[in-house]
Amino acid sequence: MLHPVILSGGSGTRLWPRSRSNTPKQFLPLVGDETLLQATALRVKAMQDVAPVITVCAEDHRFMVGEQLQAIGMPSGGILLEPAARNTAPAIALAALHVQQQDAQGVMLVLPADHLIRDEPAFRDAVMAGLAQAHAGALVTFGIKPDAPVTGYGYIRIGQPLDARVHAIGAFVEKPDVERARTYLDSGEYLWNSGMFLFRADAYLEALKKHAPAILVAARAAYDAATGDLDFIRVDADAFATSPSDSIDYAVMERATNAAVVPVDCGWSDVGSWSSLWEVADRDVDGNVQLGDTLAIDTGDSYLQAADDRLVAALGVRDLIVVDTADAVLVAHRDRVQDVKMLVDRLKAEGRTEHLHHRKVYRPWGSYDSLAVGPGFQVKRIVVKPGAALSLQRHQRRAEHWIVVSGTAEVTCNDKVFDLGANQSTYIPLGSKHRLRNTTDQPVELIEVQSGDYLGEDDIERFDDVYGRT
Amino acid sequence: MLHPVILSGGSGTRLWPRSRSNTPKQFLPLVGDETLLQATALRVKAMQDVAPVITVCAEDHRFMVGEQLQAIGMPSGGILLEPAARNTAPAIALAALHVQQQDAQGVMLVLPADHLIRDEPAFRDAVMAGLAQAHAGALVTFGIKPDAPVTGYGYIRIGQPLDARVHAIGAFVEKPDVERARTYLDSGEYLWNSGMFLFRADAYLEALKKHAPAILVAARAAYDAATGDLDFIRVDADAFATSPSDSIDYAVMERATNAAVVPVDCGWSDVGSWSSLWEVADRDVDGNVQLGDTLAIDTGDSYLQAADDRLVAALGVRDLIVVDTADAVLVAHRDRVQDVKMLVDRLKAEGRTEHLHHRKVYRPWGSYDSLAVGPGFQVKRIVVKPGAALSLQRHQRRAEHWIVVSGTAEVTCNDKVFDLGANQSTYIPLGSKHRLRNTTDQPVELIEVQSGDYLGEDDIERFDDVYGRT
Repeated sequence: MLHPVILSGGSGTRLWPRSRSNTPKQFLPLVGDETLLQATALRVKAMQDVAPVITVCAEDHRFMVGEQLQAIGMPSGGILLEPAARNTAPAIALAALHVQQQDAQGVMLVLPADHLIRDEPAFRDAVMAGLAQAHAGALVTFGIKPDAPVTGYGYIRIGQPLDARVHAIGAFVEKPDVERARTYLDSGEYLWNSGMFLFRADAYLEALKKHAPAILVAARAAYDAATGDLDFIRVDADAFATSPSDSIDYAVMERATNAAVVPVDCGWSDVGSWSSLWEVADRDVDGNVQLGDTLAIDTGDSYLQAADDRLVAALGVRDLIVVDTADAVLVAHRDRVQDVKMLVDRLKAEGRTEHLHHRKVYRPWGSYDSLAVGPGFQVKRIVVKPGAALSLQRHQRRAEHWIVVSGTAEVTCNDKVFDLGANQSTYIPLGSKHRLRNTTDQPVELIEVQSGDYLGEDDIERFDDVYGRT
Repeated sequence: MLHPVILSGGSGTRLWPRSRSNTPKQFLPLVGDETLLQATALRVKAMQDVAPVITVCAEDHRFMVGEQLQAIGMPSGGILLEPAARNTAPAIALAALHVQQQDAQGVMLVLPADHLIRDEPAFRDAVMAGLAQAHAGALVTFGIKPDAPVTGYGYIRIGQPLDARVHAIGAFVEKPDVERARTYLDSGEYLWNSGMFLFRADAYLEALKKHAPAILVAARAAYDAATGDLDFIRVDADAFATSPSDSIDYAVMERATNAAVVPVDCGWSDVGSWSSLWEVADRDVDGNVQLGDTLAIDTGDSYLQAADDRLVAALGVRDLIVVDTADAVLVAHRDRVQDVKMLVDRLKAEGRTEHLHHRKVYRPWGSYDSLAVGPGFQVKRIVVKPGAALSLQRHQRRAEHWIVVSGTAEVTCNDKVFDLGANQSTYIPLGSKHRLRNTTDQPVELIEVQSGDYLGEDDIERFDDVYGRT
């Protein structure tokens, strides 16, 4: 039995403006219809003898993880919530402790949620090839055979063979300059460090105890005091906060004598920038990737993406990344995309919000999109999923008008409960306890016009919530 | 008494996506706070002994012309509506006939509405310098002293001097190639053909009679059968349609023996493309023009413009035009902007609407902006100006919900008339006669949610309209 563990902790800013703090890249359908998280889960679901998937993610992303896994029918072995970002070593420790509860010597397959693998059979073969060493106690990693002198990845030098497919690790090597990267590529002795691992839970915990005991102590204390909440496992925040922040590479792999590597060529990409996404996407004869409503004349080798209900028109340009969203458009040279972070840092420094969330915000009950904001009012388009309900709530500073445009909503307003169908409206006076519920099997869509002197999301007092948010 | 005539007939597509069929560039504040039309009007308003301004424009633009002139306190000598586009010779003929009604030998100063002139004193000096020849019966044009070998303009070769400032015209010359343009520039004998004219109304009509009699016949018949409508002069469409379509240059100036030119250096630009707008605008140390909410890192010599409520972020790019609007963003190389027309032609060919109008549409009573469109519904943000009223109207296919968010609206719904204040709402059932009026001195803003199986702008039956649109 293999225990898949998906690390969904990334808060990537390098794919801004599509990836934002509340929807990092693993939650986006960047290539094809599935999100990277879903593609990662489906990759392991296709394997034999696989336990339900364990996910580690940030508190803020829990509903998204749950829904995205549910949408592809992926059995969940629990969603571990990291109270704070502490890098991969502590996150994997929580997962190892969780695996041990069910299977003392269970083997874990640890996968970042935000990578792309195009040759899945090759990937699965590599996992199978590493299993014997993992069962024998080795800390197995997967090394990608390089096809270009890439400077953005760490490298692994291949050591002595341990069996037909697995090698000891010669050395972990920091990101090289381009000259050195070319030497690595030409030598055939180096692999890209992919950040995917295969080992027994007890072997990892043993290694932690030896090389990074403070992480193990903190993770164990946090996990032992965990509480359950639906499918979520909420570890103790104070205990987890005492953990050093470190990657599994630095904390364990580089120090362990039982580390091993399986070389693999599986069409892997970490999708770490807009240019790497351009590289892996299907391109037309002009070398363009065109997504959404785009129009390109005399344009080449560019990535063009339009937002919903918007047109991106390109004329006479080359090597550009143009990514449009509801509230921001990025225009960057393809060679400069590693500096998208500089833009995001600028947004942070200026106290803006375009790096935090999209205009359209997903909630466990559905979504809302802010259509217009003006002095004293805001207009939102709200979709409530079948069977879902917003919390019973009250606002101190705003009244709300609701106009249902499709489906049937059940409205609670103080002591009244009534249905509201398409083309019907109601008024929620300031200070009244209200709730919106969808008891049907069709989505409900409504327009909300808020009116008041303060319209922030924090003017909300929750009395009852099916998602445990009170 | 000088009679200013502003030709506002341009339907320019070269500044798409900001200029659109329903708001060509003369109606946009492209440089500074005034629109090009307003800047043109203010240019003549500052002169001595000037009659109220006569404007010639398309039917669709009449309210915009009226409002923009009113907003700057410009007295109107009438707005002549062209029932169809017939180029400049017939349009100027209408204006000449209109001037003659008041002042048989009146001198007209004919100005395109969409040019930019930075040195206004130099321009006014040139007009004064041309007056004597114009009074004496010459057809005076203004020739701009070139400062670069521009290939996009027609040229005028300077002929014999007629007085201290005015010369006979040696020849009109077609747009040259760059080599020839350089020769013209170096010779000092050539000027750019600016499309601005100064002549007696009767002199122009006389020249038309001689060189293009069919235009005169059609224009006279159209003008003689004109009807007044508010400040608008609606000439006869059938008569006007019989006019040949021709420019004043081809129809008259090139054939006339009494044509003259005043050389002038007045910081003139026809703002004919995004690159010419970049050239005339204030640029920062990196050579960028940044308008609206923009963020640029390592970006140079570019024109960046964000739409309301949207961010444009540029990274590592040069020589780009990035113009964002509510529904479309243009990304073009600065050297390729003359081909924006290709994009517009593509939009036309595909039966789209982004070249026709903006998401926000101006009406004589105010404006509306379509915030969201979904199956069976549409959400609009509507602003009604103080003292304005929409028509009394009825829809066959849709009901409407109105929520006032600021100001006070007077609502008519069948036989009821009532006030609706901020945070109040009402429902207009399908088929009911209704009207929205603002009787206050503050704008009224409301959110309209339309619901129905067809939501096109043409489902509107008008019973009464203060703007004569029934």
